[in-house]
Amino acid sequence: MEKKIHPNLYRIDIFPGKKAVTADENDLLADRIQEAGIPLSLYCGKKGLCGKCFVEIIKGKRPPVEEREDFFIKQKGLNRKHRLACLFRIKSDLEIRIPEESIIQEISILQTGERTPVLLDPQIKKYHLQLRKPQIALPSSFLEMVENAFQKKLRVPLAVLRKFPAIAEQNHYQITAVMDSDDQVLDIEPGDTSKENFGIAIDAGTTTLVVELVDLVTGKTLDTLTARNDQIQYGSDVMSRIGFAIKDSRNLAELKKSILNALNGMIGQILDKKEIDKANVYEIVIAGNPPMNHFLLGLPVESLARAPYLSVFSCLPELTSDELGFRINERGKVYVSPNIKSFVGGDISAGLAAVDLANKKGNFLFIDLGTNGEIVLKKQDTFMATSTAAGPAFEGMNISCGMLALPGAIHRVEDRDQIVIHTLGEKPALGICGTGLIDLIAIFLERGMVSVRGRIKNKSKRIRITGNLTITQKDIREIQLAIAAIKSGIRMILMKNNLKLDQLDGIFIAGAFGNYLNIRNSIRIGLLPPLDDEKIHFVGNSSLAGAKAFLLSRPAREKIESLVKTIRFFSLAADPMFQDYFIEALEFKEQSLSG
Amino acid sequence: MEKKIHPNLYRIDIFPGKKAVTADENDLLADRIQEAGIPLSLYCGKKGLCGKCFVEIIKGKRPPVEEREDFFIKQKGLNRKHRLACLFRIKSDLEIRIPEESIIQEISILQTGERTPVLLDPQIKKYHLQLRKPQIALPSSFLEMVENAFQKKLRVPLAVLRKFPAIAEQNHYQITAVMDSDDQVLDIEPGDTSKENFGIAIDAGTTTLVVELVDLVTGKTLDTLTARNDQIQYGSDVMSRIGFAIKDSRNLAELKKSILNALNGMIGQILDKKEIDKANVYEIVIAGNPPMNHFLLGLPVESLARAPYLSVFSCLPELTSDELGFRINERGKVYVSPNIKSFVGGDISAGLAAVDLANKKGNFLFIDLGTNGEIVLKKQDTFMATSTAAGPAFEGMNISCGMLALPGAIHRVEDRDQIVIHTLGEKPALGICGTGLIDLIAIFLERGMVSVRGRIKNKSKRIRITGNLTITQKDIREIQLAIAAIKSGIRMILMKNNLKLDQLDGIFIAGAFGNYLNIRNSIRIGLLPPLDDEKIHFVGNSSLAGAKAFLLSRPAREKIESLVKTIRFFSLAADPMFQDYFIEALEFKEQSLSG
Repeated sequence: MEKKIHPNLYRIDIFPGKKAVTADENDLLADRIQEAGIPLSLYCGKKGLCGKCFVEIIKGKRPPVEEREDFFIKQKGLNRKHRLACLFRIKSDLEIRIPEESIIQEISILQTGERTPVLLDPQIKKYHLQLRKPQIALPSSFLEMVENAFQKKLRVPLAVLRKFPAIAEQNHYQITAVMDSDDQVLDIEPGDTSKENFGIAIDAGTTTLVVELVDLVTGKTLDTLTARNDQIQYGSDVMSRIGFAIKDSRNLAELKKSILNALNGMIGQILDKKEIDKANVYEIVIAGNPPMNHFLLGLPVESLARAPYLSVFSCLPELTSDELGFRINERGKVYVSPNIKSFVGGDISAGLAAVDLANKKGNFLFIDLGTNGEIVLKKQDTFMATSTAAGPAFEGMNISCGMLALPGAIHRVEDRDQIVIHTLGEKPALGICGTGLIDLIAIFLERGMVSVRGRIKNKSKRIRITGNLTITQKDIREIQLAIAAIKSGIRMILMKNNLKLDQLDGIFIAGAFGNYLNIRNSIRIGLLPPLDDEKIHFVGNSSLAGAKAFLLSRPAREKIESLVKTIRFFSLAADPMFQDYFIEALEFKEQSLSG
Repeated sequence: MEKKIHPNLYRIDIFPGKKAVTADENDLLADRIQEAGIPLSLYCGKKGLCGKCFVEIIKGKRPPVEEREDFFIKQKGLNRKHRLACLFRIKSDLEIRIPEESIIQEISILQTGERTPVLLDPQIKKYHLQLRKPQIALPSSFLEMVENAFQKKLRVPLAVLRKFPAIAEQNHYQITAVMDSDDQVLDIEPGDTSKENFGIAIDAGTTTLVVELVDLVTGKTLDTLTARNDQIQYGSDVMSRIGFAIKDSRNLAELKKSILNALNGMIGQILDKKEIDKANVYEIVIAGNPPMNHFLLGLPVESLARAPYLSVFSCLPELTSDELGFRINERGKVYVSPNIKSFVGGDISAGLAAVDLANKKGNFLFIDLGTNGEIVLKKQDTFMATSTAAGPAFEGMNISCGMLALPGAIHRVEDRDQIVIHTLGEKPALGICGTGLIDLIAIFLERGMVSVRGRIKNKSKRIRITGNLTITQKDIREIQLAIAAIKSGIRMILMKNNLKLDQLDGIFIAGAFGNYLNIRNSIRIGLLPPLDDEKIHFVGNSSLAGAKAFLLSRPAREKIESLVKTIRFFSLAADPMFQDYFIEALEFKEQSLSG
């Protein structure tokens, strides 16, 4: 027998695509495929546990089929030329074919056409296992059987340990392990339930709550539900709710109960509709501003109300659904999108993740047009955030005929000789939502019905839209104040960083006000800077999209937690120039690119 | 300024003891002291958090006092020549004095004079912190304040986060953090509570329960309480209790409730007596055999009753006091001493830790004389375990006048012309415990009152001891069977490993039957092999001592978990020679050293 002193160099031809790579003796096939730039599905981290990285070995030495491979080959009905790339040690030249099922699919999380691809790598994963039956010669424990499968020490809740022996014995030692991170068993289920893994993304807005049901196996959104945040009864903006919470110690519990009940109701509704058992929902991700996530977590908000405006947490390790009171799997987990600073919270960090701001090259603004207007500036490698109280006008609130972006809302208005209105769901018009308001103001300005200073020119000080729906002078004032808050915020943050609008490579506009914002109209009334169309990216509800990204991808969480620590905060209110800028910004006119 | 290209070599003179060591520029003083073999107290792992490693810098360059040092210097009333060795970078020759308070004290955990020193390094540690007050220029979160003190990301339960802002603000940002491992905050307490850290060690025996209250700051035992295990009503041995548990699904809950209530009662009693608040008890360690720890954890025992005699767990990560139902701190932890194999459980692994068997050089037997007789053989670097059903006679049960080793029990008997009895607590005699029985049998044999085959020679078949207390023929039979089980077990395990008794370097005798076993009498009746006195180590309740070791020392847990995986199990019952050996062993005579 010849002994090799230097390892051989082998050639691997990969189909389809016909890429060729070289490999040393005993190299792991999965590593070489990855290095060739092929996004092979390595869901379990190359442990031979998930059976997702099968490749067909067309030519070359095939080692004997291992126990794990045999299990999956039978289950998937593959032929015996297939091997798991993560277990395959290279011993010869190879010609291999990678089936489409073994390639990870990128998932686009934004609804508006902007692409932020996310690779499916969720926090909670399920593995279908065939445990080795215990033998009399080697008595071991039930727990050790699972630990042997994972080749590591595991943490298992007592309640799971209690039911585990019966589940194993009654199912011929075929079980599905629900894993949270690498070493924490969340649950043990009988047989193969690995396809039943669901999560919930939540946008907990001041005015609007959105709940999204996500399939964590496919990465697909199964359904979305929107509702008004009932906390509005305690105050329409977060400052008044904080005031309510501080007034009496029971009020915080009241606020918590209000939102928790609403969210549990929405989760129940969405699961019922899709006929999904709550036991198969293992994780919730929540994106919300600091007061909202503090209310939901029942955390004291006193410190948010006075300088230095401390939140209780910024990045938080995962909580349990139980300690929060969510009705999903009883051992489910909850991840809270991290707060940045002061009032710039988890909704914004989720938004930054949704547009992957950290990876963009150049200078960018990220603007969230919610009840609180938050602005994040990326100037090369530095990040700065600020917030401004825009009020709920963009979400259709505090407007006489305003409403959320729900069926029946006038969300788009066009001026073709006569004014043409479009309602969501093409239902009869019930009210006007944020995007509709912006279109209307732009049209009124264009037609001269409203002055640059926001005065309605007819004597009745109201403009009829359709049926009983009108826009009043007060409505115009509300939107005028909201726009001025954003406009002066943009101007201040650019000035602080010695940047002009024309040095921006792009602006991301986020907002929970329905799906479409007319960018030209927004520029016309001065809400957005007059940049070229291709520089303005309307990303819709990026808070919800970011929550979904965190649900699908554990690395996305790690990335945002690093980013959040580097963002500096700048207080608009503390700056003496802000008042002047704000008053100037009250006029409905285009922003100046060099201003 | 001269720049050093090669680091300087400095000389450190350490007093008292006058050791000298060398150090490079910028070396950490704590490292050099440790390397000099001085057991410097580095409780917090060199993070400057515990203030326990102060040294006095008599001569040499002293850097400015750091914030943390200043805090502890004031608190401890030290002079300003003192510095924390874990923060001190060496910049010159030094002459230092190490105060006695900065040296870790070894704690001896066994009650019987045998030394197994343990260094105090508990799982749960408390740190008194002065947090930096938040500033307006750098808004941060409350959680980040604590994370900054520990310089790492922490896991904090929601309930702790909720109360944290008020505690910090009301106590001038002086708090005590209760830490479980390096990154898990168990609790936040106002001011300095670092001296209030208690744990409970439990020996959960088949017949006897022992609860020990330990001060985790000093390592001292504060009190111990012993009681009968009320589960006896469901069966005097574990097999009959397993039978009871299997009969009806509610019975397991019944067994769990029985022991949990008893232990909670004992814990409450011992805490009341010592006036310690249960909120300051953060951890429980339980040592028990597999059925006992399964009952207590409410784990199914079916698999313990049939081949291959699987337990549900061997090594278990920490559980919460809440999931078990223990009444200590509401976020307290519970560590369960690991099961070895089959019926050799956590009581034995705790015992092995108590005598530090893994570190002994040579061949050793560890024998636990409980209701189950377990035997572990260490033959050089290999370990083998077996178990044998001795019955509860050694604990005074199933004996007509038998009782636990409680006040009033005859625990020692001498033959000086007349028979002299000694009772525990010097109370009037109420019954006879295991050690007393062994003395009595030896005396009866010596006096010819009982034959080698165990027959009482007088006609009434009972021997009066004192008052109404007698030994019956049946009592003799019980103890005879118990001794034979142990004796034949020892013979079998030695034979399996090709060892003879005279090749043993020592025997550790453990047992929960009170404090003193007369070794000569035990050899006389054949219970123990006839080795020289210095080779026989009576270690008392090593299960309890091991539980205490696990409470005091996290490394002791890691060590035993590694050892447990290497111990092979040998089934006596499955061996055809056992019956013969057992019958031979029924005679009351000395074991043969070469047999």
